[in-house]
Order: sequence, then C-alpha cells, then structure tokens
Amino acid sequence: MTDINSNDLMSLCKRRGFIWPSFELYGGVAGMYDYGPLGCALRNNIVEMWRSIYKGREGFVEIDSETVNPREVLAASGHVENFADFITYCKQCNAPYRADHMVKGFYENPDILTPKELEEAFVKHNIRCPACGGELGEVGEFNLMFRTNIGPGSARVGYLRPETAQGIFVNYQNLYRYNREKLPMGVIQTGRSYRNEIAPRQGMIRMREFNQMEVELFVDPEDKDWAKFPEIENETLDLIPNTTLELTTMTVKEAVEKGVIANRVLAYFVYTTKQLLTSLGIDAKRLRFREHEKDEMAHYAADCWDAEVLLSYGWTEIVGIADRGSWDLSRHAQFSGADLTHLKRFDEPREMEVEKIAAKHKALGPAFKGKAKAIAAAMESMTPSDVKDGKLAVKVDGEEITLTEEYFEVVKRVEKVAGVRVVPHVIEPSHGLDRIFYSVLEHAYDSKDDYTVLRFAPAVAPIKVGIFPLMEKDGLDDKAKEIYEKVHTHRMEAYYDGSGTIGKRYARMDEVGTPWCITVDYQTLQDGTVTIRDRDTTDQKRIPADSASAVLEELLAGRSFSSL
Amino acid sequence: MTDINSNDLMSLCKRRGFIWPSFELYGGVAGMYDYGPLGCALRNNIVEMWRSIYKGREGFVEIDSETVNPREVLAASGHVENFADFITYCKQCNAPYRADHMVKGFYENPDILTPKELEEAFVKHNIRCPACGGELGEVGEFNLMFRTNIGPGSARVGYLRPETAQGIFVNYQNLYRYNREKLPMGVIQTGRSYRNEIAPRQGMIRMREFNQMEVELFVDPEDKDWAKFPEIENETLDLIPNTTLELTTMTVKEAVEKGVIANRVLAYFVYTTKQLLTSLGIDAKRLRFREHEKDEMAHYAADCWDAEVLLSYGWTEIVGIADRGSWDLSRHAQFSGADLTHLKRFDEPREMEVEKIAAKHKALGPAFKGKAKAIAAAMESMTPSDVKDGKLAVKVDGEEITLTEEYFEVVKRVEKVAGVRVVPHVIEPSHGLDRIFYSVLEHAYDSKDDYTVLRFAPAVAPIKVGIFPLMEKDGLDDKAKEIYEKVHTHRMEAYYDGSGTIGKRYARMDEVGTPWCITVDYQTLQDGTVTIRDRDTTDQKRIPADSASAVLEELLAGRSFSSL
Repeated sequence: MTDINSNDLMSLCKRRGFIWPSFELYGGVAGMYDYGPLGCALRNNIVEMWRSIYKGREGFVEIDSETVNPREVLAASGHVENFADFITYCKQCNAPYRADHMVKGFYENPDILTPKELEEAFVKHNIRCPACGGELGEVGEFNLMFRTNIGPGSARVGYLRPETAQGIFVNYQNLYRYNREKLPMGVIQTGRSYRNEIAPRQGMIRMREFNQMEVELFVDPEDKDWAKFPEIENETLDLIPNTTLELTTMTVKEAVEKGVIANRVLAYFVYTTKQLLTSLGIDAKRLRFREHEKDEMAHYAADCWDAEVLLSYGWTEIVGIADRGSWDLSRHAQFSGADLTHLKRFDEPREMEVEKIAAKHKALGPAFKGKAKAIAAAMESMTPSDVKDGKLAVKVDGEEITLTEEYFEVVKRVEKVAGVRVVPHVIEPSHGLDRIFYSVLEHAYDSKDDYTVLRFAPAVAPIKVGIFPLMEKDGLDDKAKEIYEKVHTHRMEAYYDGSGTIGKRYARMDEVGTPWCITVDYQTLQDGTVTIRDRDTTDQKRIPADSASAVLEELLAGRSFSSL
Repeated sequence: MTDINSNDLMSLCKRRGFIWPSFELYGGVAGMYDYGPLGCALRNNIVEMWRSIYKGREGFVEIDSETVNPREVLAASGHVENFADFITYCKQCNAPYRADHMVKGFYENPDILTPKELEEAFVKHNIRCPACGGELGEVGEFNLMFRTNIGPGSARVGYLRPETAQGIFVNYQNLYRYNREKLPMGVIQTGRSYRNEIAPRQGMIRMREFNQMEVELFVDPEDKDWAKFPEIENETLDLIPNTTLELTTMTVKEAVEKGVIANRVLAYFVYTTKQLLTSLGIDAKRLRFREHEKDEMAHYAADCWDAEVLLSYGWTEIVGIADRGSWDLSRHAQFSGADLTHLKRFDEPREMEVEKIAAKHKALGPAFKGKAKAIAAAMESMTPSDVKDGKLAVKVDGEEITLTEEYFEVVKRVEKVAGVRVVPHVIEPSHGLDRIFYSVLEHAYDSKDDYTVLRFAPAVAPIKVGIFPLMEKDGLDDKAKEIYEKVHTHRMEAYYDGSGTIGKRYARMDEVGTPWCITVDYQTLQDGTVTIRDRDTTDQKRIPADSASAVLEELLAGRSFSSL
C-alpha cells in the first residue's frame, strides 16, 4: 500500500474532467467509467507511446477486429467453458455475491476453493449476506461474458469479447499472408473488452467494460531469440521468480542465463514493458515483475510474468507477458479445421522420407463406383495424422464418407520437401490500458498542504501548455490568444486561461499536470518576449513569443528547461 | 453509380490487408469486417485528420464513453421505442427478412409503408420467400439494438449503444462544468456503435458493428452564429435543398442569406464537412449535400443535411449535419429529472419579477409538526414548474410527501437575477467512419489494364514510403535497411521490400497507395544519394540519403514533388 488516498485522487479526476462514473444521470452502473476531456487525451497519449514502441521501433502491424464475437470463437478459446467466477445469492434478499470474496480473511487464497468448500466455509464461519443478514445459497458458476444474439431470434449466440487477442488469432491466416509467410510476425490491437463482473470493486482496476493494448508475437518454436536483445541485455529488472518468491534484481542477460526467464524473446519484451511503463511516468521503484506461481500459470504457458505496480490498492498487475506456446493457434486449428501453421523453409528443398495416405484403388472402385476417384483424391490430400482409430473421414460433394483401412494405407515415400510445417508459438505482452492509465495518475500524484501537482511525463500530459495574459486588457489578451492559435494543435494541446490571479491559474494547470505555462505581460508588448514556467521546478525564463511553438516542441522532445 | 466494381475493390482490400470479413475461420458473420494492417492505419489517419480539425482548429474536447448502456439512457433517447425495422419470417423455412426490402421495385419509397400495407403488398404482388418460395408471415417490429444483461440475472437490461452521441448528452453536466459553464461548447467522440441488422447488405455501408466520429456542439439557442464564419463564407457548396430538390451551387453565405441552410453555425459545419472529406481525398465532384425532405426530417430538427458521395452503390450518405434543437437535452432532463440547462448570464444582475414557491408556515406547523421546517425548505427550493395538478411532491428524509395548495402558494417577487436558464441547442456533424473509409478507397481507386493505383492523399496513406535496395547484395540491402530504420516511425510508416524486380515493387506500393518510394542503387554507394519516386507522376529525383526523413516530412506537409 502507499499513502495515496485513491478517493482523493478519484475526486480530483472527476472534478477536473479525467474520469466520470458512467451514467450518473441515471443512477450509475458499477464498474463503468467514462473518460472526460483530460482523461481521453491522457489515454490517447498512452496508446501513442505504446504504438511508437511496437509499431514504430519494432515494426509490428496493427489491426482492429470486431467486439461482438460468435460463440464458436470463444468456444475454441475456452472462454465459454472457463471464463467464470463462483456466484452465490442471498436466500432472503436474492442479492448476488462473488463467493470467493465472501470468505476473504478466512483463507489466504480463496480463489482456489471449490464450490463445495465455499459452501462449507459459509456455514463454518457463519458468513451471511452483508446486505440483509440472510443465509447464502448454493455456489454456482457465472460466466463473465456479456451475452447477446446476432440477428433476429436466438439462433446465433454472440458474446462481447473478453479480450482483443482472439481477433488476432482468428485472423492468423490473413496476417501470415500479409507478412509474406515469414516469422517472427508481430501484431498489435487496442480496443474494448468486456467482463460482466458479479460485483465490481476497486474503481478502475476492475471494470466491466475496459480497454486493452495487446501484442501477439508469432515466433518459430525453435527460435526464441530476438535480434535486438544485445541492445538491452545489460539493463536490470526487479524480478520475483516462482522458484524463490523473493525479489531479486538482475540484468536481462542474467535472467535468461540463469533460467529465471524462459527465453530471450520473452525477456526482451519483459524489459520492453519496463521501458514503456517508465516512459509513461510509472515509478521504476514501484514496479516489479512477478512470475506466475506454478499452480497459477496456465498449463500450456512456457512462462508468464506480471508487471506489478505499487498502488493505494497494493501491488497490482497491469501488464502480463507470457510465452503461450502453440496453445492459441492449436485450439483454433482444432476447432475450425484450418491450417494455422508456418512453413519453415529449408535453405533448399531436401529429400526426405515422408508418410503419406495412399488410396487402394482396387478396393475403392467396386465399392464406390463413380465416386471412387473423388474419394481417392480427397484421401490423398490428407495426412496420416488425420487417421483416427484406423479410419479416415472425407467429404465428397457435401457427403461425409468414413473409410476403413480396407480402402487406404499409410506409405513411406522419399520426396523433395520445401520445409516443415510448425505451429508458431505466441509471445503475448497484454496491457490493461485503464489500469496503466490509473497507475500513471497515482504515480504522478503529488499532493501536499492542499496543493496538488500531477507530475506527468510531458509526452502523456493531456495539456502541454497553459497560455495566459497577465491581465485581460491592454491587448495582452489578444496577444495571448494569438499565441494560443499558433501553438494549439490536436497533438500539442494548449489551454487559454484569463481568469483569476496568475497564481490560481498556475495552480489549476499544476493540478491537471500541464508541464509548462506561458504568460504574456507588459514586457511582451515592448520586446516580444513571454515568460515560460516549468511545472516541476517552478522556474521561469523569457523566450521570444514567436518561438513558442518551436521551444515547446524541443521541450517535448526532451530538451531540459534549464538549457533554455 | 460509377463504373468502379466494388467486388474488385473489396477483393484488393482483402488480398492486400485492408479489410477482412470477420470470423471467416468459422464461416463468417454478415455485416462484420475487421480492419487489417493497412486498413487500420488508413482508418487511424482519417480519425487524426478529423481530430486535427475539431480538436485542433476548433478547440473542441474529446471524450470516450462506454458502449454498453443501461436501458434508461436509450429509453430517454427514444431508441428503445423507435430504433426498429419491420421484419417478416417465412412461414415455411422461418428465414427472417426486412419487410420493406421485400417489396422494393413495387413501391418508390417502401420504408414509409405500415406493417399492414406491407402484408397486403406481399399478397398483392405474390412476394414469397426468396430462399424456399414459402409464404411470408406477419410483419412485426424488430428492435435493432443488441440486447444484453448487466451483472448476474436479467434484472438490469443493457444495450450496445446505437450511436456514440448519447454518451456525450448524458455527460452534459460534467462537460458544462469542465467548460466553465460557457457556450458554445464542442465535444467529439469516436468509437464503436451497433445496429443488429436483420439481413445486412452493401458491404461496409451497412455494418452490424460500425465506427462513428460524432461531434456535438452545444450553442445558445439565440446565437447561431460562428466566429470563423467570415473566413469561409465565400466558399461554395453543392446543395440539394428540400424546397426544389434540385442540385444548386452557391456560396456558404448565399446559402444562409437565402434561407437554404437554416443558420450560420450549421452552414459553417456543412462546409467544414466538405473541407474534411476533400482533405481525406474524397472527390469534390462526387460530393454533394442533400437536405432532408420534410417527411424525412426528425420533427425536432431545425434543419438537417446529408453529405452524400457517389459510390458504386449510387449516392450514399456518409455524414449527417443537423441542427437538433433542444431535443436531446430536453429528453434527458425529462427522463432523469436533472437540470441540463445553460445559465445565460446578463452583463450584470437584473432586477426581475420572478415566480416562487412560498410555504404556508401556519398550515404546515400543525399538520407536520417537527417536519414542517424541512418540508418548507424543500418546497421553497423548487420552482412553480414543479407544481403538477396543483400539488407539489417533496422528499424529506427519504419519505415522499405530496402537498396540496393548502400548504404553499406561488408568489411573485422582484429579485436580482444573474441570468436566464436556457436549454442549449445541439449542432451535430455525425460521421460514419467506415463509410468514409470505404469512400476514400473508392475515390482513390484507379485501375486500368490490370494495373491498380490507390491515389490516396499522402496524409491518409497507410504506408508513406517504400524503401528498396536495387539488389539485395553488395551492401545495398544494408544501406536500405539503415534508411528504413531512420525513417520508419508509427506515424511515418515505411515498408522495406527487397524481393522481385523494381517494377514489381513499385506496382505493389502503387496498389496500396504509397505516395513515394526510395531506392538505394550503386550510385548511392558512391555519392550518398538515393532515388525518390512519386506515385502519381512516376517522376524520379535523386536526394541525399541523409535527408530522406526531412524530405518526406516536407512532402507530407504539402511541398510539391517537382520542387525537390
């Protein structure tokens, strides 16, 4: 925990237009927040920083897929079956509760309890409905996906996607073709995802409708290196490995060599996550990477790390970086029947012994007559792995025909082979955008004696510069407005303020994290210079009004204020 | 209609990674499309141009609100009641159809027919199920909102928003406070909206899940001027007024003075729409503004214009610009009971006769005892407009008490009044982002003799520059990669291509609309210059490799290629 009061911060956010609880006009909906003018600008700036790393530096491509998904997609991903929390209802007032939340305090890890154990815990510890004191009922499963119907009637069930990742996986073939059938292939997507929480808590940390920035990097399973690894190998990471559960600081290179992080590409993107977060203004001292414990890690994952930041809520996961192996593509290949592989080409074709299906024409002819030829062709286009229990199922003219070994055999032949087909592995840095947004706010929040400054990194600050006339008269206001018109663009947001004392105007800009303020005063009318003030040092300098835009661009690009 | 074949264009879009039909891996879902790498980049560039006008030039603020909306919001907006199409099912195979689509060809304007008239038309013209020939059943209403439940159970009904606008209207109070209680106040939002079409057609023109860029400008109902109007008043517009239904070209100023467009602020944003669309590459000769006909215009709208572009589908609406009067805020005020007004301040407070509620303390005391004081205060905080049927309902300590005129009276008093409260009017330029995207593609599409060039405006082109080594050897490839690394950012997207003849590589870049290509050749190794080629003229020039980034920035900012 930190000494920041999240209520104070959220109240500032609401008052100054960062974040508003959604639908307050109609009583509100728990777990939903709207981004106001400053929040929307801050969030867009965070997305741009993420794009500049993944799309710019790494050259990954970005896609945007639909949020309403048909059931088939989420059955394949496992969400229809497994994306659920345990629920219980009060027998008296029928209020719904998350069952594991009700037994917190009695168990260290309530989310590993079974429904039966939860029900027993209610009785054993006399846990009752917090609202009316009634008895808690049976514990059941509640799927967390918002459900809907696509088109009229209920024939086609759809869900609001629980993650943006599936939109990338189901487009694998399109993406692979776009990437000219080469690996590695990096794909990013940002957008809404949904999680219909039973009883949302913790403000922006658990939202029913939230925003993600996901990265899916498809790699050759046998090549988990990364060309740029040497550039960052001597940088350090604060890690909590699942072998020791103790915080340890080491270089990226050591982490890989000691087997703490599974491979170089994963380690590279763990460090990339640190780069992104610290460039957004997350305090490196309140940032660590925790490896999933063995019973916590998905069975298919080769390794998985959470970027955790220290917030008023305690250490909180805001990014997950996982080596998901071949799980995602294998599942979709299995459920869709499509080929989701990569052809790993040899330098030149090799002669190899390969196993093939060969049709037994002599048996097929008499049995299937005119269809025999089509059946033979269909069988020979399949591979020995398609044989199940000694049988092959083929589709000919829409008809499904199952053939026993009477009609085919598996033969070995020497053929020229261009390469081998492998299912790519997926390295996934998955970012919770709202959580990152909130963390940026908490780590920028500096409040003393009723004076609050949001010490945003200039690149993410929603407003870059406040522009003030010392007084709204004698042409000072006209000059200040003229500067505003020149400086303000949708990427260099300026804010004109002419009301109240200059001190109050500085305070208003400090409170929303504006890094610089420019004031037009009487000297401006004589020599054409204005003052520029730095938020963090409160130092002031004079610069020519005409160079305001250029100076601000330089400051934004990293020039120090003291060098002006 | 135009001679562009939308199938050819969509096939190019699919092949080259602009647009992919969603969920094809699982058979697809009609009316849904994913944006591939080039499409996503093109769309993001369109959004940035829109932001640069509305957020940059006009200084409007941007918000981002939730897509799952509780029922109350959409009941107030009228969508629960009215956002519906007429549906009919085949009595034999149960296939659903849009009833008005079934009678097309028999009626000029089938969407004004009633359910009864539609049913009669089926019989009269012997219209049957196109799939099985069965009889068509009764015509009913089908609400086009995707419906879901928020939280467990079905207690709280939610809908996927049919437009982004409502998220702005329900935040009016927050926005008004953010804007320091001043008008005009401009607010923009971009994001997903949803329309659960019965049977989607026309590709990207009618999507079940689509993207909008909406602008809501709140203005004083008595001040429909716009400060920057004089800057554009002599520019021309192609208009189809609903009085003549004939295309006529006139200046913005004339359009207002002749009463063709209702007022100056609306006319300014009609012209702004033309500016935005043409800067995106929409052909001004295939763009017109059509006024809604009288029976087509919403009853509350003061005036409404559609920006229509000529596509292979015919003239198609892609932006609507409306003066919606006080409708939206009045409805939400009525349904929520909240005060959604603007205090129009007098220059200084005026003495005015006002009507007030005065409590009759003598009657209240004996009747309500200890509560009398609280009831009196509650009544006096209300206004005469709260009196319904001679009664006032107040809430005291959670208890609702209804009071007759025995306990209060409406009195006239002279008071100092700061201003009058008015319900702001809304000027709404509402952009269909996917339709604009598709229109940009069609108007850029130039295909002759199997050679296709997408003549995108450089600002929206997904890839700005192709970078090629003449041969992938002798260090030419290293030099080209070095230039790529220097030039490529997430906003200046570069594409490295080393395979095939130079002609093929130019063709690949032309086909995706890349405005410039840079080639490293043997001369580069001697004098450090590279060739740069212009897409539209196919002219080539030599520039120093070191200045590639700077030259591209200049070209992007509008420098002519011939001046290099």
